[in-house]
Amino acid sequence: MKHVFMDYSSTSYVDEDVLKEMLPYFTKDFGNPSSIHEYGRTANDAVDHARSQVASLLNCNPNEIIFTAGGTEADNIAIKGAAYLKRDKIDRKGPHIITTDIEHPAVLETCKQLEKEGFEVLYMGVEADGILDPAALEKALSPNTFLLSVMYANNEVGAIQPIPEIGKIAQKHGIVFHTDAVQAVAKTPIDVRNDNLDLLALSSHKMYGPKGIGALYIKKGVKLQPLIHGGGHEQGLRSSTLNVPGIVGLGKACELAKKRLPDDMKYLQNLRDRLISNVLKIEESYLNGHPTKRLVNNAHFRFTGIEGESLLLALDAKGIAASTGSACSSKKLQGSHVLKAIGLDPETSHGSIRLSIGRTTTEDDIDYVSNALIEIVDKLRQISPMWNR
Amino acid sequence: MKHVFMDYSSTSYVDEDVLKEMLPYFTKDFGNPSSIHEYGRTANDAVDHARSQVASLLNCNPNEIIFTAGGTEADNIAIKGAAYLKRDKIDRKGPHIITTDIEHPAVLETCKQLEKEGFEVLYMGVEADGILDPAALEKALSPNTFLLSVMYANNEVGAIQPIPEIGKIAQKHGIVFHTDAVQAVAKTPIDVRNDNLDLLALSSHKMYGPKGIGALYIKKGVKLQPLIHGGGHEQGLRSSTLNVPGIVGLGKACELAKKRLPDDMKYLQNLRDRLISNVLKIEESYLNGHPTKRLVNNAHFRFTGIEGESLLLALDAKGIAASTGSACSSKKLQGSHVLKAIGLDPETSHGSIRLSIGRTTTEDDIDYVSNALIEIVDKLRQISPMWNR
Repeated sequence: MKHVFMDYSSTSYVDEDVLKEMLPYFTKDFGNPSSIHEYGRTANDAVDHARSQVASLLNCNPNEIIFTAGGTEADNIAIKGAAYLKRDKIDRKGPHIITTDIEHPAVLETCKQLEKEGFEVLYMGVEADGILDPAALEKALSPNTFLLSVMYANNEVGAIQPIPEIGKIAQKHGIVFHTDAVQAVAKTPIDVRNDNLDLLALSSHKMYGPKGIGALYIKKGVKLQPLIHGGGHEQGLRSSTLNVPGIVGLGKACELAKKRLPDDMKYLQNLRDRLISNVLKIEESYLNGHPTKRLVNNAHFRFTGIEGESLLLALDAKGIAASTGSACSSKKLQGSHVLKAIGLDPETSHGSIRLSIGRTTTEDDIDYVSNALIEIVDKLRQISPMWNR
Repeated sequence: MKHVFMDYSSTSYVDEDVLKEMLPYFTKDFGNPSSIHEYGRTANDAVDHARSQVASLLNCNPNEIIFTAGGTEADNIAIKGAAYLKRDKIDRKGPHIITTDIEHPAVLETCKQLEKEGFEVLYMGVEADGILDPAALEKALSPNTFLLSVMYANNEVGAIQPIPEIGKIAQKHGIVFHTDAVQAVAKTPIDVRNDNLDLLALSSHKMYGPKGIGALYIKKGVKLQPLIHGGGHEQGLRSSTLNVPGIVGLGKACELAKKRLPDDMKYLQNLRDRLISNVLKIEESYLNGHPTKRLVNNAHFRFTGIEGESLLLALDAKGIAASTGSACSSKKLQGSHVLKAIGLDPETSHGSIRLSIGRTTTEDDIDYVSNALIEIVDKLRQISPMWNR
């Protein structure tokens, strides 16, 4: 059976050049970067190099990067780290923190926790195409708003937010601006200076690096309170022995992403558009999210009269890996909070699937999946009580 | 030049069988365990298997294990997780938490942070041999003490604490008992049931597994508040896409540790004792920590009239990797809080080094290092103003 992985937004394989770079640090050069002997220095040099590679992709200084265990931890350090330094502001009128209602759970659940601890959080709605209106955001600010957290690109419908504009607003009002860029890094050009960003979270395993490693960009001068205390690693912000092979892998993945970005984007956009054009030939099929302001590797469809879960299982039986939304919530079988936020009722949103492509995706894969979808949608509709033709 | 790594307490290489087990999960079987398609199921099966391997080493159930990014995070989740559920107890008379003053910074700094947040913490002293007196601990309990955190074995002087006895006291008084077992796992037999443990933190990279992964044992029924919020992974206690290769590596390292423990212990203890016997031939040299209740892989010496830092550098120049204390603090050049706690004055404690051995250490290595030490100590003493003979 053919196997087609169309769930690159959930994770990616590790690039072979990335793995090659990592391997010595498991065995020969296994030192702890905190040690002052030769083994330690070798490991520490590797970490320094990786930090430069990450910084170069984002256009910041290496000392503005700390390594974390992944995107979720980076988001938590950014948001809680900024909030805990402002505990004294809790008494004053909010909102203290403004975010959107289409964020990843790493941001949403963190904000919900902060609400339990007394912070007021405003969850902004977005337009039907999944894009936040910066003017509406600016109107919502209060004098006590100290943090904005707006994702760079949505993990379900792929909508890319107007980050530089939002950054300008944050800057004008002296508010710390964080973005969860887990889906966006390596899929769209990001420049933390041009984008007026104070904090940015990224994850290695969404960009052909290993799982279990991520990074947080912290603009020079932005202060955070650590969540994990211990040996004082990473400028005291994230204590733990450094995951050297993971860090080396993330660094290499960033170097490759920088080099490949223009070609990757062109290649993926062509395939994505072919996929969209093929699939939208299906009667009563629709693209969720903005048609052009979307990630080059993301297509998100809904089909009237179909259950997304059944669609997924039928695709799986044909060797096709897809998703109804984020992998993080796929086992929970809850309705998508993102589709709800762009105005879809539960019944309509349940007929949605996300197809996300990557560097190994071919035109053949696109056509195989499109044809499979056409066939499966037709079969499922024949037995669907929600489809009356 | 001969290279001898005698800093196994800071980190270890990854066992080749461990790495072999990990490799497919970087490339071929790279799925996200949260995905419901075939790639996800394969990854999830690997995680389940690893969880059983960890549980088997500790003698608990697999659902009592959550994976973390390392020992430090596991300690933080255990201690803050237990404390944050008892915020309502802060008003009452303490101590709320009891620990020792020889803990690793992952515990000490976490406790200091909790003090800033209003918790009362008691840091118990230890005997001159580095061992905590359980009777003194029991006397120190208050009716509002809800957490004990006592390390299984010390990372500097190797002293093994009377964990089963302390566990009994905790149980008798209905207090949650956590142990930082980062140095102890795979070096001494641990059985969380016999040891009456509620929480236990371990780290993979101290036991021939990869860096960036650890685990927390949480006895069934013990409740914790999560530190990292997001997709709800690991029973909601540690959100983040699972680090599948790291988890698989830790699992395999635990399987090997269980199988090899009796032989490893015998082998290491022989070498350690040979090292101690060789080194103590040096005039005015002493062993820090308990002579027998100590880790089989740890030897910690002090030499009158010598600076530990100079000793380290001279050893490094001969290709020997050693440490003055924990790698986590080796760059800070502070006096060791552990040596202070066992009663050494700053001047005496500065003449200390830790030699920690592992599976690749040979008798030849032991003799090479002993002879190098004898030579270096002699040379350093000749130029030392603190040595008058």
